[in-house]
Amino acid sequence: MTTSTYTVTGMTCGHCVSAVREEVGRIPGVESVDVDLTSGRVVVESAAPLTDSDVLAAVDEAGYEAVPA
Amino acid sequence: MTTSTYTVTGMTCGHCVSAVREEVGRIPGVESVDVDLTSGRVVVESAAPLTDSDVLAAVDEAGYEAVPA
Repeated sequence: MTTSTYTVTGMTCGHCVSAVREEVGRIPGVESVDVDLTSGRVVVESAAPLTDSDVLAAVDEAGYEAVPA
Repeated sequence: MTTSTYTVTGMTCGHCVSAVREEVGRIPGVESVDVDLTSGRVVVESAAPLTDSDVLAAVDEAGYEAVPA
């Protein structure tokens, strides 16, 4: 299991959290996505290491911006 | 056509706007729902007059609070 952490900006409510969780959760191999609204911290667990670009693209698809933390 | 206006508090993003629009739009007789995120102003057009309680209940269902404007 690999754990990757990102900081996402722009989330303002629970709907935003759900949108990020859903898009990141669609990445093949992702097993869990934990999103903290207040800090913007997103912790992703996956069976194999993810590429940052896949995660950043998924967050972008949800409508937000992420950087590796 | 009847136009009713409400002020909704607590909306922070486009997802919130969509949630309010969707719930209020489900009230029988509602023909359009216009939601302004910045002001919280919600304008509802309906074939017949709505009861405030139906609209306030729909906004509550979406997770926000409304008062007649």
